[in-house]
Amino acid sequence: MSLKLGVIGTGAIGRDHIRRCSQTLLNSQVVAVTDINLEQAAQVVADLQLNAEVYADGHALIQSAQVEAVLVTSWGPSHEEFVLAAIAAGKPVFCEKPLAVTARGCRNIVEAEVAHGKRLVQVGFMRPYDQGYQALKAVIDSGQIGEPLMLHCAHRNPTVGENYNTGMAITDTLIHELDVLRWLLADDYVSVQVVFPRKTSKALSHLRDPQIVLLETARGTRIDVEVFVNCQYGYDIQCEVVGETGIAKLPEPSQVQLRSGAKLSNAILMDWKDRFIAAYDVELQAFIDGVRAGQVGGPSAWDGFAAAVAADACIEAQGSGQIVKVSLPDRPAFYG
Amino acid sequence: MSLKLGVIGTGAIGRDHIRRCSQTLLNSQVVAVTDINLEQAAQVVADLQLNAEVYADGHALIQSAQVEAVLVTSWGPSHEEFVLAAIAAGKPVFCEKPLAVTARGCRNIVEAEVAHGKRLVQVGFMRPYDQGYQALKAVIDSGQIGEPLMLHCAHRNPTVGENYNTGMAITDTLIHELDVLRWLLADDYVSVQVVFPRKTSKALSHLRDPQIVLLETARGTRIDVEVFVNCQYGYDIQCEVVGETGIAKLPEPSQVQLRSGAKLSNAILMDWKDRFIAAYDVELQAFIDGVRAGQVGGPSAWDGFAAAVAADACIEAQGSGQIVKVSLPDRPAFYG
Amino acid sequence: MSLKLGVIGTGAIGRDHIRRCSQTLLNSQVVAVTDINLEQAAQVVADLQLNAEVYADGHALIQSAQVEAVLVTSWGPSHEEFVLAAIAAGKPVFCEKPLAVTARGCRNIVEAEVAHGKRLVQVGFMRPYDQGYQALKAVIDSGQIGEPLMLHCAHRNPTVGENYNTGMAITDTLIHELDVLRWLLADDYVSVQVVFPRKTSKALSHLRDPQIVLLETARGTRIDVEVFVNCQYGYDIQCEVVGETGIAKLPEPSQVQLRSGAKLSNAILMDWKDRFIAAYDVELQAFIDGVRAGQVGGPSAWDGFAAAVAADACIEAQGSGQIVKVSLPDRPAFYG
Amino acid sequence: MSLKLGVIGTGAIGRDHIRRCSQTLLNSQVVAVTDINLEQAAQVVADLQLNAEVYADGHALIQSAQVEAVLVTSWGPSHEEFVLAAIAAGKPVFCEKPLAVTARGCRNIVEAEVAHGKRLVQVGFMRPYDQGYQALKAVIDSGQIGEPLMLHCAHRNPTVGENYNTGMAITDTLIHELDVLRWLLADDYVSVQVVFPRKTSKALSHLRDPQIVLLETARGTRIDVEVFVNCQYGYDIQCEVVGETGIAKLPEPSQVQLRSGAKLSNAILMDWKDRFIAAYDVELQAFIDGVRAGQVGGPSAWDGFAAAVAADACIEAQGSGQIVKVSLPDRPAFYG
Repeated sequence: MSLKLGVIGTGAIGRDHIRRCSQTLLNSQVVAVTDINLEQAAQVVADLQLNAEVYADGHALIQSAQVEAVLVTSWGPSHEEFVLAAIAAGKPVFCEKPLAVTARGCRNIVEAEVAHGKRLVQVGFMRPYDQGYQALKAVIDSGQIGEPLMLHCAHRNPTVGENYNTGMAITDTLIHELDVLRWLLADDYVSVQVVFPRKTSKALSHLRDPQIVLLETARGTRIDVEVFVNCQYGYDIQCEVVGETGIAKLPEPSQVQLRSGAKLSNAILMDWKDRFIAAYDVELQAFIDGVRAGQVGGPSAWDGFAAAVAADACIEAQGSGQIVKVSLPDRPAFYG
Repeated sequence: MSLKLGVIGTGAIGRDHIRRCSQTLLNSQVVAVTDINLEQAAQVVADLQLNAEVYADGHALIQSAQVEAVLVTSWGPSHEEFVLAAIAAGKPVFCEKPLAVTARGCRNIVEAEVAHGKRLVQVGFMRPYDQGYQALKAVIDSGQIGEPLMLHCAHRNPTVGENYNTGMAITDTLIHELDVLRWLLADDYVSVQVVFPRKTSKALSHLRDPQIVLLETARGTRIDVEVFVNCQYGYDIQCEVVGETGIAKLPEPSQVQLRSGAKLSNAILMDWKDRFIAAYDVELQAFIDGVRAGQVGGPSAWDGFAAAVAADACIEAQGSGQIVKVSLPDRPAFYG
Repeated sequence: MSLKLGVIGTGAIGRDHIRRCSQTLLNSQVVAVTDINLEQAAQVVADLQLNAEVYADGHALIQSAQVEAVLVTSWGPSHEEFVLAAIAAGKPVFCEKPLAVTARGCRNIVEAEVAHGKRLVQVGFMRPYDQGYQALKAVIDSGQIGEPLMLHCAHRNPTVGENYNTGMAITDTLIHELDVLRWLLADDYVSVQVVFPRKTSKALSHLRDPQIVLLETARGTRIDVEVFVNCQYGYDIQCEVVGETGIAKLPEPSQVQLRSGAKLSNAILMDWKDRFIAAYDVELQAFIDGVRAGQVGGPSAWDGFAAAVAADACIEAQGSGQIVKVSLPDRPAFYG
Repeated sequence: MSLKLGVIGTGAIGRDHIRRCSQTLLNSQVVAVTDINLEQAAQVVADLQLNAEVYADGHALIQSAQVEAVLVTSWGPSHEEFVLAAIAAGKPVFCEKPLAVTARGCRNIVEAEVAHGKRLVQVGFMRPYDQGYQALKAVIDSGQIGEPLMLHCAHRNPTVGENYNTGMAITDTLIHELDVLRWLLADDYVSVQVVFPRKTSKALSHLRDPQIVLLETARGTRIDVEVFVNCQYGYDIQCEVVGETGIAKLPEPSQVQLRSGAKLSNAILMDWKDRFIAAYDVELQAFIDGVRAGQVGGPSAWDGFAAAVAADACIEAQGSGQIVKVSLPDRPAFYG
């Protein structure tokens, strides 16, 4: 009765999802894997002692009668192709972010899914599955703080590697806020602006760090997100929602409180994996449960598209320094 | 390959463990149930849509070839009998607290298990599986606060029912601290004392509430535990370890911080089930994984015995108002 | 040996400063008062049992040989005139904010003081005298968080009266941040922008509330200040300084922590007077001590001018929605 | 109109009080000083540029017509003699703790004051003047937490010097709790017990550190106070009041919150002088204001006596390990 999964892409995140689906989650098994590097795919099968076949490529895997649902964890530019193929095959597909590397690509997936007539796609945005964000949304939705008017957010990493560039602050980092804040507010972005504070001396020369992204939603809520990926002190995700009658703040991770060396302190996490590890489990379990129940849910292809459109506007705003409109077409009724 | 479990006792906790083992945990299935009320047992099978047989009594269930491991969640006074029967049958057994209602009963189980020659028994103390206590133990064991000298603890419930009496403050409430603090400190109790503060007006007339239990360990660490089961404001578990160079405090559950109505606040839980629900999952998964790996671990029969001996001393100390010695025999090498 | 003070203006703040100087502070006495309403001035003398003369107007008071130093606490539009008169008389003068109602007026005072050749003017910005801001500045100046890159601030009031309008969010409310943040950073503003979030339903129709003011400094530090004067829940001043290696946050006022009614809470102040009352005492004592030592210090006429120039730019930015440059002339060497 | 003070004893605390009364407080001047070391007394007069006469001894100072009120800050064993002399002279006297080195000595002072017929004595217990304790008392008295049932307290110092011995944990350290908790609860102690945890390796060999003192009050409230004077990490005063419906905790000193080096932290004070410095100012100002108004208030000779009686019982309990009764005579009506 386990869901038979095929996984396309056995790099770091793919391998981690394979481990998750075969060892941690309920009612799933990985029966098929592939990768552009077939040796690596075979190695993962061996390492994790999977009873799984290695396929020649993603299309062969998708077509296999053994495979009931597909995980796409390959290189970003290949996502669109495999998701479209899964839709064509009528198979549920979980696609790691980004859904596609262009908004147009996301749109293609949306159109294919709508044409198919039933939801098949879940996008790998895990923050809506985080207990903290869920608790925050519950407070907002309860009306305890009135209508949300402003959000003050921060996304901070201790350091980033050499390959990280100014645009990736949007497409790799802010993208999580672009997704989760839409979900939190049940609202869409209408404009964005990016301002660059004085650059930290800790960033490499090619990277403008930190950045502040200012977003406006359709209902007029104003959001500021500090993106600071060389903050040194920790991996720190902040989100404060200012409502008409009160303010709700994303919980800090629970930690032992120490009194030591003239300080009252709590540890701050240094690694993003420690922060959201539980959310990854919940997210994929939700996909598996959804497929088994015949109801794919969670972040949709439309959500992936909306995030991509907003990200494109942010990239433009980085360049122009101006306020940039975010033009999202009307949401198809299909997406509720 | 799932572990086939038989469950003796389908009351509240039994039913919850059955749900857990059949719907939430990995690699387990409930194949057999029984209860002193057989109709209730049958009802649970029906409600949870189990593919399980209802046995006439616990002994029949234990003897069944279908049953690979046993969960004892029946009425406390019957625990000893069923655990001994499981040991006699050579089957791993998870027994909800108390292991037995007398220290003598616990001792009988210890002796039977030692005679058997291999660990079969895990006692249902779940706090060592709580992330907070594990984080606290990690800090202690890291040496960051030096050797522990004192512990200040509290176990508070909003209210208790009519049936709750003064002794149950030890056997039902403090028993969790008696277990987890031994584990936290890797130390044994040598004396106990109970003092009764002014009684709260919120307690029923037959109940002395709150109580303060003072414990001394073999290494000389001093522990005070406030037990206050009509504290009104919440279910609140506190544990502060004062070491030679610093203090570590059990994390508060992670909560949304609110600014509202002239207050900066975090919610306090009202229900104990919300506080330790995750620990129950981890505890039983550990039993299942342990049995499958041929290595039962976790709180042992000896731990159940040691807690019972300490509890007996506390009950005596409630009556006498004196400092009472805790006499635990030497730990058999069997228990490491 | 007490400093003999003359006070011009016996409204709420004037009366409070008279009480402070005659009953709370060291080495000062109020010997002269006046007000546009002379009866009110006489009443204050009677109420506070002062040994003080009521003068016909501010100029007569300034000229009086009895008066060694002047406090200007009259209606804002009259400040410039009285401060200039005090400078002309060579008398030290403490002027409540605003120093003058126009930047031009402030400039006139700066020029008169520079021409006089010695500092005589202290402006009534009290936040630099607040212990919390002083502690925050000490952390910044210690280098513990590296160079400041961003400041996230909030200035929130529970409610405001009918007379409060959109511009006053700058001139009456933000003005405190305009002063204290320059002092905190030892930096000047170079541009401002104002964005208007969705309006709270709790504000009167003529008032745009909340507002977010975005400031850029000469060194490139970016500041966002949320001004929200109908936030309902409390009087709440927040200031978080994000540096290259860490973040420092203005202390919350010290409060009893309560566990009660399923909440762990600390009170939030509702009245701004409770928040900064000690700072008012320290500020005026500093003026008195400064005058007695022949060294007027604290916020200078130049600081008053700089705040006025920035406020003017903010008002323009409220109207235009654009980024507005802040053009401050070079600081005279006179002001250090 | 300033109160003319004579100060007996110009050691550290005496010198500090002289500075306070001559430079910081309102309406006081130091006109007379003496010390067993007259050169030191003269030096203090010179250092602080006092217009004060050096007297040959405490009795001469007390008798001087110049002196309106007396501060006793000499060596503890001399307190009783000087306080009695001040009462005999009918002069108000502020006596640093201890009021006398024996309960009998305190009793003598009580009897002399009652015989005099009017309060003249204020004892130098400063904690009731601390804002934090005042806020805590306000919460208790408001009924927000119901009747107090238990107090959990701690008095921790980073280290102590060689001269500090086991008894001083009571007479020099716990004495502050013995005073302030009586005031906080408006209740008296009826029994005490002392338990000795495992000794810290950081204490010198002659000192038993830490200690836990258990107190019971007339109304049945139970208090535990951890006294730990080599805790290394800071000077840390904790007081948590558990009431029938909630818990109130003494505020932590207000501090900048830092995010830095994988830690979210607030500084803990290392020096007791930083913790209670403001309370010393308020305490002595209250004495000065009280004397000028003809109404000496604050901690009375009776309070000093009650603390001494409780301290004696604690010393006995240190030795015996038993629960020791605290026998306080009935409070004279004179003390309200």
